Amino acid sequence: MADTALPSRRKETRTDAVMQAVRAKLASRALAAGDRLPSIRRFAATMGVSPSTVVEAYDRLAAEGLIRARRGSGFYVASAALPPLALADDRPRRDRAVDPFWVSRQSLDAGPEALKPGCGWLPADWMPIAALRREFRALSRAGDAVLADYGSARGSLPLRRLLMGRFAEEGLEVSSDQLLLTPSGTQAIDLICRFLLRPGDTVLVDDPCYFNFRALLRAHQVKLVGVPYRASGPDVGIFEAALSAERPRLYITNSALHNPTGATLSAHTAHRLLNAAAAHDLTVVEDDIFADFEPEASARLAALDGFERVIRIGSFSKTLSASVRCGYIAARADWIEDLVDLQIATGFGGPGPVAAGLVAGVLSGGGYRKNMEEMRRRLARARREVAAKLRELGIEPWLMPRGGFYLWCRLPDGCDSAEVARTALADNLVLAPGDVFSVSQSAAAFMRFNVAQCGDPRVMAALGRALERGGESRRARARGKAAFPDPTPGDNL
Amino acid sequence: MADTALPSRRKETRTDAVMQAVRAKLASRALAAGDRLPSIRRFAATMGVSPSTVVEAYDRLAAEGLIRARRGSGFYVASAALPPLALADDRPRRDRAVDPFWVSRQSLDAGPEALKPGCGWLPADWMPIAALRREFRALSRAGDAVLADYGSARGSLPLRRLLMGRFAEEGLEVSSDQLLLTPSGTQAIDLICRFLLRPGDTVLVDDPCYFNFRALLRAHQVKLVGVPYRASGPDVGIFEAALSAERPRLYITNSALHNPTGATLSAHTAHRLLNAAAAHDLTVVEDDIFADFEPEASARLAALDGFERVIRIGSFSKTLSASVRCGYIAARADWIEDLVDLQIATGFGGPGPVAAGLVAGVLSGGGYRKNMEEMRRRLARARREVAAKLRELGIEPWLMPRGGFYLWCRLPDGCDSAEVARTALADNLVLAPGDVFSVSQSAAAFMRFNVAQCGDPRVMAALGRALERGGESRRARARGKAAFPDPTPGDNL
Repeated sequence: MADTALPSRRKETRTDAVMQAVRAKLASRALAAGDRLPSIRRFAATMGVSPSTVVEAYDRLAAEGLIRARRGSGFYVASAALPPLALADDRPRRDRAVDPFWVSRQSLDAGPEALKPGCGWLPADWMPIAALRREFRALSRAGDAVLADYGSARGSLPLRRLLMGRFAEEGLEVSSDQLLLTPSGTQAIDLICRFLLRPGDTVLVDDPCYFNFRALLRAHQVKLVGVPYRASGPDVGIFEAALSAERPRLYITNSALHNPTGATLSAHTAHRLLNAAAAHDLTVVEDDIFADFEPEASARLAALDGFERVIRIGSFSKTLSASVRCGYIAARADWIEDLVDLQIATGFGGPGPVAAGLVAGVLSGGGYRKNMEEMRRRLARARREVAAKLRELGIEPWLMPRGGFYLWCRLPDGCDSAEVARTALADNLVLAPGDVFSVSQSAAAFMRFNVAQCGDPRVMAALGRALERGGESRRARARGKAAFPDPTPGDNL
Repeated sequence: MADTALPSRRKETRTDAVMQAVRAKLASRALAAGDRLPSIRRFAATMGVSPSTVVEAYDRLAAEGLIRARRGSGFYVASAALPPLALADDRPRRDRAVDPFWVSRQSLDAGPEALKPGCGWLPADWMPIAALRREFRALSRAGDAVLADYGSARGSLPLRRLLMGRFAEEGLEVSSDQLLLTPSGTQAIDLICRFLLRPGDTVLVDDPCYFNFRALLRAHQVKLVGVPYRASGPDVGIFEAALSAERPRLYITNSALHNPTGATLSAHTAHRLLNAAAAHDLTVVEDDIFADFEPEASARLAALDGFERVIRIGSFSKTLSASVRCGYIAARADWIEDLVDLQIATGFGGPGPVAAGLVAGVLSGGGYRKNMEEMRRRLARARREVAAKLRELGIEPWLMPRGGFYLWCRLPDGCDSAEVARTALADNLVLAPGDVFSVSQSAAAFMRFNVAQCGDPRVMAALGRALERGGESRRARARGKAAFPDPTPGDNL
């Protein structure tokens, strides 16, 4: 029977065996740099496999750079050996300042053994995995253009149509030329900032706000002004005063469930915000990324304003997949037209047909809605349970959110959250200390917890130890003996 | 037999039938906004399908926004009907200036019936489609984290290891912390520009150069200086003079096969460029996107320089898939460290594990290399054949490239390529006129042709007509009667 007719798994095993044999020869110096490898026919006979298996194995070793093909003369051991793989390759550095990047990188680069109550997403197995797997199988049978072409400049029309349907459920009318797909929600905001801001402009954000807004706006070299966030939205009096005093160009906020507080913007606050924005010709970016976590829809700025001065952005990273990245911008059609050009200039377009097709496929199947219902139930339970456990450690939620996965909490008296977060790394515990969310740096006593990442019983134990050690080191410092290097006072980013 | 046990294709058909029935009721006004839909059990009986099929159909209609679920009370016709889909939705505007965006958007948004000798990519069926399909099937069985998590801040380590292997084949040593994955090659350059440039800086590009470099650098508000490109690379004398006179911060170029000319940088020119760059502390971005199209590797700036002042970028959009987008930056480790932060701030990371996994899977299988060999053979034949046909129309290649899919050609005397490109749109023919590639706007007599997109016999016929009409309209204008509105003189972008 021809080798190619074997089940692919057996063929895989044979290919691996040939690759291992070559690697062993390299390790034992039986083959050195520049040496010619055995011919395909000879090595196939030696290994008792078909020549096609050896070809496949040599091709893969060539792709890894261990060997190289010379046309018409066979395969040779590569002269430039790969540098050894540093074991600590991607591990985040622990000695950097506790700033917004610190949280991002600790979260992204934590090993699989880390516990991450500070991270901003759900565990992978909470996502609609079965629906994703189904869509990957469907894609394996999709047309060539879906698999290999760029797609249109605004992004997949079927996905934009689905977004229009979701907006229509809020009573928000939007046409397909008011929508632009972007590679992520963050890139949606970034593109808007490039379009509307110039260095030196002033931008309002909530205090506290999603920490990466601070990093993003810093990259745009703008002045940040924070507006204290209350239980029903930003403090409108301070917001109005800031508009008069600072003449900001933009206000960026989350509607639905606010990050990090989990609070809900009230209809009354939303209405007053928009009136103030109109009076001062302020543009508002509404980041709606947590919308699907709400039990019932709350007030939305875009729904009230109808895209006159509100730009809605969103993505599916929190509810569908953060690996298949896809975000969107909904705005005035003339702005979208300009944003299309800007996205071509800076990225040659947004997400390709594969990412857009995956998202559209999952959204339009029933699995997404069912998974969201289940997620909301699980999160409601997790919020209660985690809040109770945090209280046992003296950590008190600022409010109980209606939905989502965040609890914004006050630490026990005297605890500095950056210090606690830093010391927690010794236990492989990634935390999100309050000041990374705060423009005014007034949230050192707070910390954001992701209740979906607190299920492991080791989390509360490690958190308890970190609180203690944090306290000890404060006391040590108070006595003039730092237990570990001072946290950098920070670039105040 | 339970409905769920049916083959999925029959289940799909039934779900579609239920959806069609509901749509028909909406179209005939049997159901109007706010009406309750038949209960699931009742409609299942009416349609002769299982309740689960009706649930699936209702869920999909809800996802499309046609109906909405109210918890505990069934499904209702959505009150906000979708606006009608504009037929001309994504069609590019023909009345805009013939600038770099014009080519991008005509190419991206052309309908399937368009002929696109001006576009910058290969037809989808030239790509390694079978390998892509295999990787999609493999992904449908991948771990949850691959399908749903963000992945690491620098991007998939296996893909970076594969890149290290490819670099090693050039004798170019690079460690994994010198590599950052980006969502596309364009975004790689954009990130570097954000990192190194400030508004008002000067940047050198080739004249002609890839048109989107001009659009990208315009977005960075820098001054562009073009260096005439010769058959063996940029004119070194003018390059050196520009370094002294303009003190540019950056030079951005293609190595391997230059876009749009298809010319090859000679080792001698590369060496002199790098010496001049060293003398003036200039950083060089080497866009290596066409490397795999070369029959034999030519001189590379990064290979000579070793990442001291050269930054290598690349992507797989031209050879693997433009739908699965993934690019990379190879540079000094300390720069990469800063670029990681910048990519978090502006995009919350690069390509997710899905895109990186697809690219790594295709690259490490043998199919990619085989497909590239076949592509190179096909392209060599196509270059010869298309060059011969163009010559019949009086269109003369500037040189015959060693590889790739571009021919940079001089049009017959008196033809203005922007005018020809504009008039060609009447025949649904998308062309790439010379001046979009030229900082000095001195390439009006030139045009770039993609030989892989010239296989359709209608291309040469339509091109012939466009040349004639372009000539006629010039003569008409010369007599003071424009045959169509004057092309906007352009923002000189």
